Amino acid sequence: MSLHLEPVIRLPQTSVAEGVFAAGDRVLPEETPVALTYNGSTHAVMMASPADLEDFALGFSLSEGIIAEPSELASMEIVEHDLGFEVRMWLQESSSGAYRSRRRAMAGPVGCGLCGVESLAEALRPASKVAGALQVPPRFIATAMADLAKAQRLNREARAIHAAALWRPEQGLIAIREDVGRHNALDKLAGALARADEPCSASMVLLTSRVSVEMVQKAAHMGAPIIVAISAPTALAVRVAESCGLTLVAVARQDSFEVFTHHERIKRLGL
Amino acid sequence: MSLHLEPVIRLPQTSVAEGVFAAGDRVLPEETPVALTYNGSTHAVMMASPADLEDFALGFSLSEGIIAEPSELASMEIVEHDLGFEVRMWLQESSSGAYRSRRRAMAGPVGCGLCGVESLAEALRPASKVAGALQVPPRFIATAMADLAKAQRLNREARAIHAAALWRPEQGLIAIREDVGRHNALDKLAGALARADEPCSASMVLLTSRVSVEMVQKAAHMGAPIIVAISAPTALAVRVAESCGLTLVAVARQDSFEVFTHHERIKRLGL
Repeated sequence: MSLHLEPVIRLPQTSVAEGVFAAGDRVLPEETPVALTYNGSTHAVMMASPADLEDFALGFSLSEGIIAEPSELASMEIVEHDLGFEVRMWLQESSSGAYRSRRRAMAGPVGCGLCGVESLAEALRPASKVAGALQVPPRFIATAMADLAKAQRLNREARAIHAAALWRPEQGLIAIREDVGRHNALDKLAGALARADEPCSASMVLLTSRVSVEMVQKAAHMGAPIIVAISAPTALAVRVAESCGLTLVAVARQDSFEVFTHHERIKRLGL
Repeated sequence: MSLHLEPVIRLPQTSVAEGVFAAGDRVLPEETPVALTYNGSTHAVMMASPADLEDFALGFSLSEGIIAEPSELASMEIVEHDLGFEVRMWLQESSSGAYRSRRRAMAGPVGCGLCGVESLAEALRPASKVAGALQVPPRFIATAMADLAKAQRLNREARAIHAAALWRPEQGLIAIREDVGRHNALDKLAGALARADEPCSASMVLLTSRVSVEMVQKAAHMGAPIIVAISAPTALAVRVAESCGLTLVAVARQDSFEVFTHHERIKRLGL
């Protein structure tokens, strides 16, 4: 099996309808293993769309708390292998010590790893507090989601590809990233924004997917005060959004949406 | 934040349509951190629906290759914490040595972990070869997916919950498991089938989701010769299904479907 570099690819298939077989093809999303290594050791292998890998690696490093600032990465190199990509990152000496001790605590030899309770606390570490005085009228939600749909280039080709975007009143869509995985799409967006030094404080994060607790944690970490998602949140995502001060808008349709937390950021007009 | 034990829960929301705000509620899927520990150390924390956790832990242990047989687990205990569940598993002495050395290789201290190339090979280790002489006529696909839809108890309450099921000609639906995560649903199914000692060789695995490469790897590991999924596969999932001999049916609608690999298992009738 060799490496495929395009995020979508046309493959043969056979359509079967009412017992009749017809040979054809379909454009499918590519999915590629991406090994993220720090200082020579693999931290994680993620299955991702082979696109915007620098954004992905930077965004992942930030949202996982491996670095606090892009400048803590001393270097990043993307290496193609037969089976996938390797993103080789080297941390600044000042960050390497902290990474080394955190990693030793997380993934030591058997018997020295985190016990179950510590791992649960690590998975649910408190999300960043969101401030942000942003307030938007309801019609901005529909406008933003329409802008998002228009910008989903890969999804138009292959369907089944998620997107995450940043949208700001007056300016519209600031950036969009697409990936076969919804968490990856959001990490890619975070990385792209960090590279461009774009703040998220007066902006909405738009998602084509459901909202899991990790999506709330990532958006809060980016500093965005509002998430708008096409599909529903999990109950845990709602609880974490409530406690960290984030406005969670979901089930966003063309002419309606639902607000699950902090609806003071959605303006009530004409009353 | 305290532990919620039901897989779905009703939470308040505010609906906004054409600028009009209306307070209401919606049933949402719960999402709970589940720490899977072996011999006292955490292997992974997964976000899952709090249901069928014994099936989940056993299926995960099998599909990750931590054990080859259910009997290799000496004990399993589920412990409730404030933040989530811990599934404490202890391996038989004979399996502990192998686990210890594999884990040491995978997650040693910085500098001794797998390098990028090794991790890519680990992520894409060859899927189990699928044999299985099963052949099904096209109408079985629609029947099976209709059976699946009828059995999605949690999804009927909360939507946005995935299901994985095993379906066998003559017998219909053998087992179904639901989870907020599609990979978890399939692991739960694998665990339930292993506990019941139900073979998968003459059966189809049904999925409500897209098909990533990991879904193909898991189904092949279970020994199921056919996957039928509602949504599209990734290109990598197609390649791996092709090479391991698995029939991949996807985009399964009420009156049509598409076959991406090994269509010899779908019978051509009346020609």
